[in-house]
Amino acid sequence: MTSDFSQFSNSTFLQACLGLATPYTPMWLMRQAGRYLPEYKATRAKAGSFMGLATNREYATEVTLQPLDRYDLDAAILFSDILTVPDAMGLGLSFETGEGPKFSSPIRDEAGVDKLEVPDMGKLQYVFDAVSSIRKALVQDGKQRVPLIGFSGSPWTLACYMVEGGGSDDFRLVKSMMYARPDLMHRILAINADAVAAYLNAQIDAGAQAVMVFDSWGGALSHAAFAQFSLAYTRRVLTQLKRTDSAGNIVPRIVFTKGGGLWLEAMRDLPCEVIGLDWTCSLSSARNMLHGTGKALQGNIDPNILFAPPEAIYQEVGAVLADFGAPHTGQGAGQTHIFNLGHGISQFTPPEHVTALVQAVKTQSRAMRAPAR
Amino acid sequence: MTSDFSQFSNSTFLQACLGLATPYTPMWLMRQAGRYLPEYKATRAKAGSFMGLATNREYATEVTLQPLDRYDLDAAILFSDILTVPDAMGLGLSFETGEGPKFSSPIRDEAGVDKLEVPDMGKLQYVFDAVSSIRKALVQDGKQRVPLIGFSGSPWTLACYMVEGGGSDDFRLVKSMMYARPDLMHRILAINADAVAAYLNAQIDAGAQAVMVFDSWGGALSHAAFAQFSLAYTRRVLTQLKRTDSAGNIVPRIVFTKGGGLWLEAMRDLPCEVIGLDWTCSLSSARNMLHGTGKALQGNIDPNILFAPPEAIYQEVGAVLADFGAPHTGQGAGQTHIFNLGHGISQFTPPEHVTALVQAVKTQSRAMRAPAR
Repeated sequence: MTSDFSQFSNSTFLQACLGLATPYTPMWLMRQAGRYLPEYKATRAKAGSFMGLATNREYATEVTLQPLDRYDLDAAILFSDILTVPDAMGLGLSFETGEGPKFSSPIRDEAGVDKLEVPDMGKLQYVFDAVSSIRKALVQDGKQRVPLIGFSGSPWTLACYMVEGGGSDDFRLVKSMMYARPDLMHRILAINADAVAAYLNAQIDAGAQAVMVFDSWGGALSHAAFAQFSLAYTRRVLTQLKRTDSAGNIVPRIVFTKGGGLWLEAMRDLPCEVIGLDWTCSLSSARNMLHGTGKALQGNIDPNILFAPPEAIYQEVGAVLADFGAPHTGQGAGQTHIFNLGHGISQFTPPEHVTALVQAVKTQSRAMRAPAR
Repeated sequence: MTSDFSQFSNSTFLQACLGLATPYTPMWLMRQAGRYLPEYKATRAKAGSFMGLATNREYATEVTLQPLDRYDLDAAILFSDILTVPDAMGLGLSFETGEGPKFSSPIRDEAGVDKLEVPDMGKLQYVFDAVSSIRKALVQDGKQRVPLIGFSGSPWTLACYMVEGGGSDDFRLVKSMMYARPDLMHRILAINADAVAAYLNAQIDAGAQAVMVFDSWGGALSHAAFAQFSLAYTRRVLTQLKRTDSAGNIVPRIVFTKGGGLWLEAMRDLPCEVIGLDWTCSLSSARNMLHGTGKALQGNIDPNILFAPPEAIYQEVGAVLADFGAPHTGQGAGQTHIFNLGHGISQFTPPEHVTALVQAVKTQSRAMRAPAR
């Protein structure tokens, strides 16, 4: 397997995913296309609703590119939602204003599980159409500006929403099923894993150049349950993924378990190229823990730093870069860092503070690579 | 310093706090007096409101003893709320139905911090009265049934509520202040720490026989911020605490940081006898990490196990006990375990499942200590 970076104006993100040295630490932001941007709100208003936005290829393309036009980011990420797959399974997704996602037909019992199956990927065609459309829109002067990341929720994270019927503080319903009827939970997770694998492979076919699995709720599990009910099924997804796109380029796999810093040892042999981290975990200790695995690290500044003034942002960026430590600068593969937030950006973020963040990362990470004089 | 256990019918909890062997693993449950118990709801209805309950010594005594009458638990914990201290600071605590705690005068700026001071402990006399009253009520046939635990929120956890004005999903306001004006945050935390120390010392004077610091929101911080803004001030509390009660008995100090499993290394030298853990952290790895510190471990079953049938509860209890590993059975001090949930019990818990939990812990932990035949 090889990778041809010549099609890109900026391939630093993909290079770092593969452990290759870059002139600075590449970066993107989880939920970089979103409500903190006035231009996003304008498109959202035109679309009428969140799902109206996500299911329309022109709108999805428009909002995916908005943060790239405003900031010097090194990757685009498909604008979509992690709950498209259970929606395609027939659970009836809706977003009520200020309420978060809701499923009209949550899975609560064996009869519900009996009806569940890997959905026809045709029902998710709007996502794959958006991926193709974004890929085209990313081309400028004959080159692709930056790579495009596709994504999905993890099998466990999807199951949380599918059983709870929406967000949850305590995961009482999904954990009740897990503890009382582990057999049912394993059936849901197996279906979810195969659905997520098919979904991500179809995104790769449509043009996604890296894929990310968001295990947003893995951290709600006990250490033992995490291994059994989340990590095992994330692994089942990863092992089914296409390793290259149609042109033969490697498609890096990123796994992010929010609150998963305690379990890095268990993730050492996960078949992926990048591990995402939240801010609770020190990058230097994660780097030590994953040393020798060839895995890059992605993260992990607290998104709330974006409410502080630029000088504080600059300082905290410096602390995160220093925590990762000396960048890989040699030939061949080494341990690399992709800068990101430790969680999605807040809708209340002042957009100009993101400018300060991006500048702080670029400036300081270039300086760390400058030859000593 | 010594401890006289002869005043107790059951002193297993205090013994385990001090690293001494017990015939089984002692246990209590965070929020054991609470809404899942019908008898609690009856008292709460008589009291009219949550604060009406917490501020009345008879009611507070009544509900503190309710779980002990129903279950074979090894400790009582003062019925109160972690927000009594900021309420005494004048922030105006109220509990709206289904809304959680609210402060009418949250701290949002320098002017608010300027007005903040360690409150007159007289304003918290109702708490100390409850402690004395509970101590008396615990005496049966001339002996105290079990020891009484006093508690407080940690300085950082109190600050979260004081700045946010209530609960929060993202801690945006308190972290904005922390990142933008660390000087103000340090001022709040120093006042909180001294207030919490005075509060816990007054609880000890009134009869608390162990004290616990609940750092419920420490886990929301980055690893670096946790050390600076939470752990440092928990330490400031601990170092000011009385080491013995008026009779000269050691008063063990328990520290519980929800989501703090990643930071046990930093807690190794914390001046306390017991470290509480949530379910994300393996007890065996925590035991290894804290080996040689003399610290006991408290925790850590997922409270959602209580929604599963008794057989599943029995099995999961076995897994938690086995995770801690071989109990300390020798003379003198060793590494001990106090069984607990990894978080407060859910209001939706079926009370009879708690019976199953207690039986499972007692039976299996006794069997683990039985001499091999």
